[in-house]
This record gives sequence, structure tokens and C-alpha cells, in this order.
Amino acid sequence: MQIALLGGTGDVGEGLALRWGRDSDHALLIGSRDRDRATDAADRYADRLADLGVDAAIEGRENPAAAAAADVTVLSVPPYHVADTVSTVADDLADGAVLVSPAVGMQSDEHGLHYHRPSAGSVTAVAADAAPSTVSVVGAFHSLSAEKLTALEEPLEQDTLLVGDDPDAKDTVAGLAEDIEGLRPLDAGPLANAPEVESLTPLLINLARYNETLSDVGVSFS
Amino acid sequence: MQIALLGGTGDVGEGLALRWGRDSDHALLIGSRDRDRATDAADRYADRLADLGVDAAIEGRENPAAAAAADVTVLSVPPYHVADTVSTVADDLADGAVLVSPAVGMQSDEHGLHYHRPSAGSVTAVAADAAPSTVSVVGAFHSLSAEKLTALEEPLEQDTLLVGDDPDAKDTVAGLAEDIEGLRPLDAGPLANAPEVESLTPLLINLARYNETLSDVGVSFS
Repeated sequence: MQIALLGGTGDVGEGLALRWGRDSDHALLIGSRDRDRATDAADRYADRLADLGVDAAIEGRENPAAAAAADVTVLSVPPYHVADTVSTVADDLADGAVLVSPAVGMQSDEHGLHYHRPSAGSVTAVAADAAPSTVSVVGAFHSLSAEKLTALEEPLEQDTLLVGDDPDAKDTVAGLAEDIEGLRPLDAGPLANAPEVESLTPLLINLARYNETLSDVGVSFS
Repeated sequence: MQIALLGGTGDVGEGLALRWGRDSDHALLIGSRDRDRATDAADRYADRLADLGVDAAIEGRENPAAAAAADVTVLSVPPYHVADTVSTVADDLADGAVLVSPAVGMQSDEHGLHYHRPSAGSVTAVAADAAPSTVSVVGAFHSLSAEKLTALEEPLEQDTLLVGDDPDAKDTVAGLAEDIEGLRPLDAGPLANAPEVESLTPLLINLARYNETLSDVGVSFS
């Protein structure tokens, strides 16, 4: 499968690219607004994987070119860039492509981080509202810490929650989650259930702040 | 320690009473608006524990009498009764007593349950606003399923998140959580961080609905 990571030069994009690069045979397209930054990042990720003896297929492209070639496109950009990023690639996305939204809107005060719910209902809904009707949007990977993802020597051993209205698209993304060692996908229901899923991320960051025994917190359900 | 469970005839109150009754030496006061219902429930819980060979100290009382004798009072009532319940016991609470709020406001639609945030900010804040200034309020035990608590033969093996502005009160409640076998307390910060903690409960219920492998879902962090 071809996976595009738009904004893939950022830390979450890097973490997902390294995990898929090591644990799967998917071809990875690192997207950026700037082609040179994209190819630099792709080379850096490939070098890190080569050090582990892994010959991964990772290329850098501008965001629209990355999205055009992808079966699944991950919006690994900050929440306030989600709608813009979808718009810049909307004409390039193949019919039936899957868009994945891992971003979460947060606000901080002296106590910690708080979920900042967009007026669309969730960041996943922002992505869905901006996407063409020929693609399906799935919310996933919100609660994965970039630090934990990039620490390839550490096992993940955590869950990720999926929301979306297209069961086939959700199955595709669940398969991609399962490809990452130690990551278990769970179904949190339709896109309307995204706010409770996105609310987890500030909670995890607050737990890391207030508990000395925890850092780069992940979550699991049983 | 004396623990009052107001609304302790309900399922969460029953679950906490059974767990503390089995796993600790604390004296438990089951509170209800109706004295007979309180004593009936207390007798039922004591009988169930006696079947396990445990001689637990459990008595039934009207809510104000239960609260008057307690070091820690748990508001195990529905969210829309929290403010009323605190008001009816406000004059009875000892100075320095700790009030614990486990309730969560939720709304359901066809997709699942959603967090319904009170205008006070959280149900824990509702409790704090209604409480006299001589007591401290701690949010805790929100994410524990009543079914799992009452299934005494099942290990819990999960975390519970605490919020509150009084570190001593939070330590007291953390100790009570640790008294329950398999339950680990984690600090989620001040009371202002309660919304993200309370949001977990509808998420857990949605996960049970959409995943055949899960029921009475609990959560743990690492």
C-alpha cells in the first residue's frame, strides 16, 4: 500500500513513518509544502532505518504529489492546518482514497492542557468537511506520543482509537495500525464520537505532567 | 477510616462498598434518602461479603447521618443529583472532611454516548461549588464500571484518575483507591482538569458498544 504522510517532516509524521518503515512493507511518501524539506526528511528516516538493517521505501514529495499517489493519506499537521492541507490536496486525491486525521485541538492554562473542540465538532469533522465526497475520513492515531513512536527500541504496547462513518475505510486504517508492532486498533464508532476520542490527548499530557512515574503516556483498554 | 457512600444503594455505590468491604478495614456507611433502603442495601452487601468469609463493617443511614460520621463522603449519585445531595448534607459534614465526586454527565444519540459538560465546567466543579468551604472536593472513580466493581471474582487491573485542588485530600483519596486490589490512582491535576477526566467515561461505554472483545471497559495508562 502507498501511505502519504502530509506534514510528514513533523514529529508525529516521523514517528509513524519510522514505525511503518520498520514494521511493514508499505511505501511511504513524506509530504511537505516544501519539496526539499520532504526529501531531506525522507532521507533521514531511511538512514535511521538502514542503521537497523531495514531497507524501507521512503520518498519525499510536495503534499499534493504525495497525496496523488497514495491509497491512504495521513494528515500529520497541526489542527489549525488540517482544513487548509485537505484543500490543497483535494483535487489530487484518488477516488476511494482514505484520509486519516490524528490531530487534536488543545489549549493550555496553568493547570494543564484542555480539549479545544472546533465548532465542526472535532478536528476529524473539520477534515471530513474539507474533504471531497469521493474520499473517506477516519480519525486515528490521536493518542500516540511522537516521542514514544520515534523511540523505536521501546515497545508501544498501547491502543489507538478509530472513528469514522465508512466501515471499509476504518478496516483499512485498522489494518495499518495492526501493522505497527504493539499497537492495537479499537473501534470508537462513527465520526460523531470523535470528540471523546480527541479529548484523550490532553488528558495523557496532563497525566505525564502530574505523575513522576509516567512520561510519553499511552493508553490501553480492557 | 469512615467512608460514607451517599446514594450507596445504586450500582456504583454497591461496587465501591463491596470492594472496600472486602479489601480494607474501613467502616462503610451506606447513605440513602430513605433509611430503610439504606439498611436493606447495607445488609445485602454485608451478606455477600459474609459469603466470602469477610466480616465487613457496613451500616445503612440517611444521607445526612452517613455524611456526618464520615471522614470521606462519596457522592455516588446521578450527576443531576450531585448539587442537591451536597446541599442536603452540607451542614453535617465535618470540617476537613473530603467529598469525592465520581459522577459524569452524559448524553446519548444514535452513535453513542457523549460528554455533557455542565456550565460549571465539570460535575466535580458542580460538587465543589455546592460544598461548604470547610471541606475539600476530589474527583475520582469516574471510569470504574459498576459491573466490573461488583464482579468481585474478577481482578480490576485498571487506573483511576484523581483531580482536585487540595493535595492532602487527593492523597487521602489516592490511599483509598490503593486499598482496592488492582486499582491504581493517578493524579490528573487540579479540579480545572476534570472535564478531560470525565470525558473518559462515555468513551469507555462507546468502546464496549463497538468492540465485541470488550465489555465493562476499564482503562490503564503507561
